[in-house]
Amino acid sequence: MCQLLGMNCNVPTDIAFSFRGFRQRAGVTDQHSDGFGIGFFEEAGCRLFLDYKAASESPIAKLVDHYPIKSLNVIAHIRKATQGVVSLANCHPFQRELWGQYWLFAHNGDLKRLPRGIGKGHYYQPVGTTDSEQAFCFLLENLRSHHDTMPSPDILFAELKVLTSALAGYGVFNFILSNGQYMFAHCSTNLSYIVRKAPFTTAHLLDEDVTFDFSTVTTPTDRVAVIATQPLTDNEVWTKFEPDQLIMFIEGEPVWEQRCLHTRKTAAITESTTSEPHA
Amino acid sequence: MCQLLGMNCNVPTDIAFSFRGFRQRAGVTDQHSDGFGIGFFEEAGCRLFLDYKAASESPIAKLVDHYPIKSLNVIAHIRKATQGVVSLANCHPFQRELWGQYWLFAHNGDLKRLPRGIGKGHYYQPVGTTDSEQAFCFLLENLRSHHDTMPSPDILFAELKVLTSALAGYGVFNFILSNGQYMFAHCSTNLSYIVRKAPFTTAHLLDEDVTFDFSTVTTPTDRVAVIATQPLTDNEVWTKFEPDQLIMFIEGEPVWEQRCLHTRKTAAITESTTSEPHA
Repeated sequence: MCQLLGMNCNVPTDIAFSFRGFRQRAGVTDQHSDGFGIGFFEEAGCRLFLDYKAASESPIAKLVDHYPIKSLNVIAHIRKATQGVVSLANCHPFQRELWGQYWLFAHNGDLKRLPRGIGKGHYYQPVGTTDSEQAFCFLLENLRSHHDTMPSPDILFAELKVLTSALAGYGVFNFILSNGQYMFAHCSTNLSYIVRKAPFTTAHLLDEDVTFDFSTVTTPTDRVAVIATQPLTDNEVWTKFEPDQLIMFIEGEPVWEQRCLHTRKTAAITESTTSEPHA
Repeated sequence: MCQLLGMNCNVPTDIAFSFRGFRQRAGVTDQHSDGFGIGFFEEAGCRLFLDYKAASESPIAKLVDHYPIKSLNVIAHIRKATQGVVSLANCHPFQRELWGQYWLFAHNGDLKRLPRGIGKGHYYQPVGTTDSEQAFCFLLENLRSHHDTMPSPDILFAELKVLTSALAGYGVFNFILSNGQYMFAHCSTNLSYIVRKAPFTTAHLLDEDVTFDFSTVTTPTDRVAVIATQPLTDNEVWTKFEPDQLIMFIEGEPVWEQRCLHTRKTAAITESTTSEPHA
């Protein structure tokens, strides 16, 4: 298994405090040492740092610690390999372009016995060997097949709900997905979030004895949602996702929430398979 | 204009020496200070470092200097903006997936008056606002449209020659393109290369007083091609590309060379335009 970290805000925010605690779980406070990745959206651009070294030791993770990058949307991942060897091609987040936007995706879980060819589509194909990248390609393939241009957020959410539900039938499917504007987070087993807004207070990390006073760096209108496999602080109230819950965050707020019931699995997977001439 | 650096080898090689000289041109020995990027292929994976800061100052460029990453194929770029604002989305190299492989592309030049919609295709769309990313998407779109799977290298070279020739009719089109296995380099105006192989000697940088003895880190069978807008060393013989020359490097060797005559421009661009329902 792996651990996920996401941030979605209404003002460009530095994720250094959260990432500092998170990366301790890659070998110090936990064993997610088979590579890491962190991707920052900056306007239309996207900056992705990957390493197959543990985030607790990687010089690239140290750079991220000390080079504050402000972003509206960030996705990070520390890996404990279940499927796929330890290699750069299997490090999350994965990145693709859809509708002229970059999309990032990171997964915690294990999708077993995915039908052969899932994810190997007309528009997208996996490069590495993980079930996670297959799932990401499956999501994008279906969205792209149904829409030549970006649909409205409610349609996007509804379609992702159906596609997510289909994949979640194959195993544990906690994920975070973003196009730099919206952030989608789905929970099968473990995912929590917190929305920090005024009045801002002081937070204390769970994984390292570090305290930070958010009131010193924020304005009253700032809103920052942080999503993580396990809460990152021990003095704040985190909300645990329900099983099979998909939430769409916009500007630091959980806007759409829905339980994904596994009723559309067959339909969605069949639909995808027929659109995969090269499977 | 910008400057390009590429490396294609038969054994994973550290590009630190070349990059050290190259990044001085981003503000110290030359004025290419509007962002930089360097992408390393590592087996199927690809690691891309981008910054809109000058490579001579960027902490990310310093990391690359001190964190030796061995790779068979590397593409780097320092930008002096001609089209498109200074932003992360406009930093080269650009990355996309094609046939289940990552592809990187960097451009030095200026393509003027590209037909509207070029690069905005069925499979690929630009995210930023540069002519360069449009050209990259145009190349991949046409390759993908003609082949569901990767063709043989001779067919790939022949098709890239036609597509390159079509785009080169619109202006200066020096570029380096790679899928992690092959490296294609095209010259309109300025591009040179050197193949280092046994007996390895000592090289001295042009942009900084640094000398390196390659014989201390190589074996007799190693072969490393380095491609750059301007030679990086002052005591070695670099080969200047001819105008309109496309070379395909495999395992450190220039394998196919061809002059691109601008005869197929109309045909190729028309072909692309008809395959762009969303243009």
